[in-house]
Amino acid sequence: MAEKITPRSKDYSQWYLDIVQHAGLAENSDVRGCMVIKPHGYAIWEKMQRGLDRLFKDTGHVNAYFPLFIPKSFLAREEEMAEGFAKECAVVTHYRLKAEKGKGLYVDPEAKLEEELIIRPTSETIIWNTYKNWVQSYRDLPLLINQWCNVVRWEMRTRLFLRTAEFLWQEGHTAHATQKEAEDEARMILMDCYRKFAEEFMAMPVLTGPKSEGQKFPGAVYTLCIEAMMQDKKALQAGTSHFLGQNFAKAFDVQFQNAEGKLEHAWATSWGVSTRLVGGLIMSHSDDNGLVAPPRLAPLHVGIVPLGKNDEERKASLAAAEKLAGELRALPRDDFYLYESITVKVDQSFDKSPGFRFAEYEVRGVPVRVELGPKDLEKQSCVVARRDVPGKEGKQFDVPLAGAPAHIDKLLREMQHGLFDRARKFRDANSFEVNAWEEFQQKIEEPGGFLWAHWDGTRETEARIAEETKATIRCIPFARKAEPGKCILTGKPSAGRVVFAKAY
Amino acid sequence: MAEKITPRSKDYSQWYLDIVQHAGLAENSDVRGCMVIKPHGYAIWEKMQRGLDRLFKDTGHVNAYFPLFIPKSFLAREEEMAEGFAKECAVVTHYRLKAEKGKGLYVDPEAKLEEELIIRPTSETIIWNTYKNWVQSYRDLPLLINQWCNVVRWEMRTRLFLRTAEFLWQEGHTAHATQKEAEDEARMILMDCYRKFAEEFMAMPVLTGPKSEGQKFPGAVYTLCIEAMMQDKKALQAGTSHFLGQNFAKAFDVQFQNAEGKLEHAWATSWGVSTRLVGGLIMSHSDDNGLVAPPRLAPLHVGIVPLGKNDEERKASLAAAEKLAGELRALPRDDFYLYESITVKVDQSFDKSPGFRFAEYEVRGVPVRVELGPKDLEKQSCVVARRDVPGKEGKQFDVPLAGAPAHIDKLLREMQHGLFDRARKFRDANSFEVNAWEEFQQKIEEPGGFLWAHWDGTRETEARIAEETKATIRCIPFARKAEPGKCILTGKPSAGRVVFAKAY
Repeated sequence: MAEKITPRSKDYSQWYLDIVQHAGLAENSDVRGCMVIKPHGYAIWEKMQRGLDRLFKDTGHVNAYFPLFIPKSFLAREEEMAEGFAKECAVVTHYRLKAEKGKGLYVDPEAKLEEELIIRPTSETIIWNTYKNWVQSYRDLPLLINQWCNVVRWEMRTRLFLRTAEFLWQEGHTAHATQKEAEDEARMILMDCYRKFAEEFMAMPVLTGPKSEGQKFPGAVYTLCIEAMMQDKKALQAGTSHFLGQNFAKAFDVQFQNAEGKLEHAWATSWGVSTRLVGGLIMSHSDDNGLVAPPRLAPLHVGIVPLGKNDEERKASLAAAEKLAGELRALPRDDFYLYESITVKVDQSFDKSPGFRFAEYEVRGVPVRVELGPKDLEKQSCVVARRDVPGKEGKQFDVPLAGAPAHIDKLLREMQHGLFDRARKFRDANSFEVNAWEEFQQKIEEPGGFLWAHWDGTRETEARIAEETKATIRCIPFARKAEPGKCILTGKPSAGRVVFAKAY
Repeated sequence: MAEKITPRSKDYSQWYLDIVQHAGLAENSDVRGCMVIKPHGYAIWEKMQRGLDRLFKDTGHVNAYFPLFIPKSFLAREEEMAEGFAKECAVVTHYRLKAEKGKGLYVDPEAKLEEELIIRPTSETIIWNTYKNWVQSYRDLPLLINQWCNVVRWEMRTRLFLRTAEFLWQEGHTAHATQKEAEDEARMILMDCYRKFAEEFMAMPVLTGPKSEGQKFPGAVYTLCIEAMMQDKKALQAGTSHFLGQNFAKAFDVQFQNAEGKLEHAWATSWGVSTRLVGGLIMSHSDDNGLVAPPRLAPLHVGIVPLGKNDEERKASLAAAEKLAGELRALPRDDFYLYESITVKVDQSFDKSPGFRFAEYEVRGVPVRVELGPKDLEKQSCVVARRDVPGKEGKQFDVPLAGAPAHIDKLLREMQHGLFDRARKFRDANSFEVNAWEEFQQKIEEPGGFLWAHWDGTRETEARIAEETKATIRCIPFARKAEPGKCILTGKPSAGRVVFAKAY
């Protein structure tokens, strides 16, 4: 299996597609730009949903569901949003087909909709149109609602998980009585849900902070983001949280009576992460042998491969494998495992070679593989191979079977932290403060990475830098120092550095 | 609150809509036929998903995700399916809007799709088109895949949860090497997943068995169903499991090499349940005071209402309420609670009257309400009110606080069984064996219910009976006796009774 994967050093894009294919995560469908998320990929998304959903609920949010269809006139009401999404809308114009002998199946011209319906590219408009009826008094606020659903943005250049015409996501939409409360919410979601999830579940370190004006969401006052570095040193926008001001309340006339009896427009946030995160997970940790998944989000934690040359040996190692699997599954369900039991598979494909069987678990990113043969059994031990360290170095020999469940449990937790540390070191090693324009132009090409540079704060300068280098401002980090300086391009004054990078 | 709910005896349809509204479950959106599932309603659906998903996974299934869009030509390939769904298809014809000053937002005529895309009404076609590439050898089988998603069927007459243009569901699609294996799967899903879920989670007794030819799914060889009786004695089709034979394998050319090296078409099943189940839950158990939810699927298990006339009293009862809530949440997470902790809310709306506060939990279907006032505290006890027995009769006084968590835990389990028994007794009391046509015509009007009658097995007779009485064959129950008889309408021979009813 592994030999089919293009090495990262040779062609990073092809490597990514090879991982997606060989790990069985997703594939292109026959519908332009739409992917099929295969069971192993979907299992990662399910774990992501479970982890995120708990973070949302622990911070007071509830789930609901709003229509897939958005009347065209709704989208038109918020001008920036209409302009931002018009170019990529899938439009429903008819509601009936006809089947006729000879003519086949055709769209019934008499079943034309009076008003076209847009497949939601995002749901602010339909949701704020609904909130209008839910909000009368300040007592009805806040509304803290999230939705798990599919959305469609007709992208011309698609890439599995990272950019697809249809994708799965969650979108939170909250309404508040005051500006401060809404701004606090947007920031809380970013820091306590998205940052936390990215770092503690995905083991993917992120920068946090606002986007520049040029990169914000259509309809937002400002956009906060988490931004991660992939192994090719390009940036991935992994999640955004928007403060929408009163834009949507005004567009949809959502007013409430405040404690003083006066009418006010409600304040809004929206925030989302999508199946794009699966792409981020892959590109943060995987290697040339296949997927490397952080244990907290791995669909399968442990693959046990019993070995034996004949029936008798196989029977004995299989029995020991089943016993170990049972012990692992019986470990306490705790927060680390999302309150589910450890997932274990006992491999039974004795007809295949050991190497082939090992590679199967390797390519699919199973964090721990246990090998169990007659020689191990003699010693009442097993071999434990950790996925984050490839080859022989990742193998621990003579692990006593009696202590194996606790050993593996501990190892999984170590690996989770180890992956995060490794990714953070990689990012930090590829982040540079840059002070001269020529240096900027060179560094963004070679070695690439995150360039911390001063910027004069204008859209024009950002656009010019992007034109000349393909680097965009990824984030104005919360964590930046207050450090007066001069814009890398124009030399005009700047209050602190922002982070430039090429991005997905 | 309760006074706004129309009594069932007066207008059952209006009663249903009142429950949906006052319990905060769903509402119509401004998009024709599409509903907004509100947080309390969505929470029931989430619990349903959790329960069902576990049943599917415990029987070897995995989840995946396939595109929302189905090329028109895919639908055309299976003739029965094309005919069955053509009349209710939402059709995407364009992929771009344009925004122009003065002209507003309009569909860009230059962005017309070469081939129209249908919003999936069900996914057999797109999935079997994908399976084509996944199945080469019998070793690739079976494929046991489920999908949670939204589907669209452009219904003209809609009704919240029961029939909506867009709805949420799961659809299982399996591929097998042999006919027997596929037929076993279709039946296993019906009996071990759908029947079990309906009866053990929803507390809704169901008949199981095949549909008649006239009622089967377009494209199926035969359709199995679970069928429940609502409180107005009408039938609700609550779930279906289809044996599809080789129809889709042939339409999409899915062939595999069998153990003998010969090419064969794969055998298929598909099966689904939807947000319609929420409607079934409501209509199985609720009363004129509001929603009654079976404890296993109730979004909130226990509402604790501390009482007091002044700050001091309120503080004391609130502290006792919080303590009890903590103890309840700490009860072991077991299968009954879907391995989640009991959900408890401590009511803090002291500014409202006790009666108003009690009614809030009643109308929303919270299984257990605890009342805790100064007089209770003096005795270190509380009042426990069970939702399934309305009024004073449902109240248990002087329940010692020390034993309250165990008491409530036991009560919730009793209620779950009690609701099922009550619903089964109701169904049985409203099921009749009918042997004469005149009696059939009378009984289906008054008292209504499930009429077990002989039928000659022809589509024509079923259609005539439906025309004259509006009753359809709901199910040919697995559990029927072998009992030769004469068709209720034509007098022709019959091998056993089938179940007729008016249906949703």
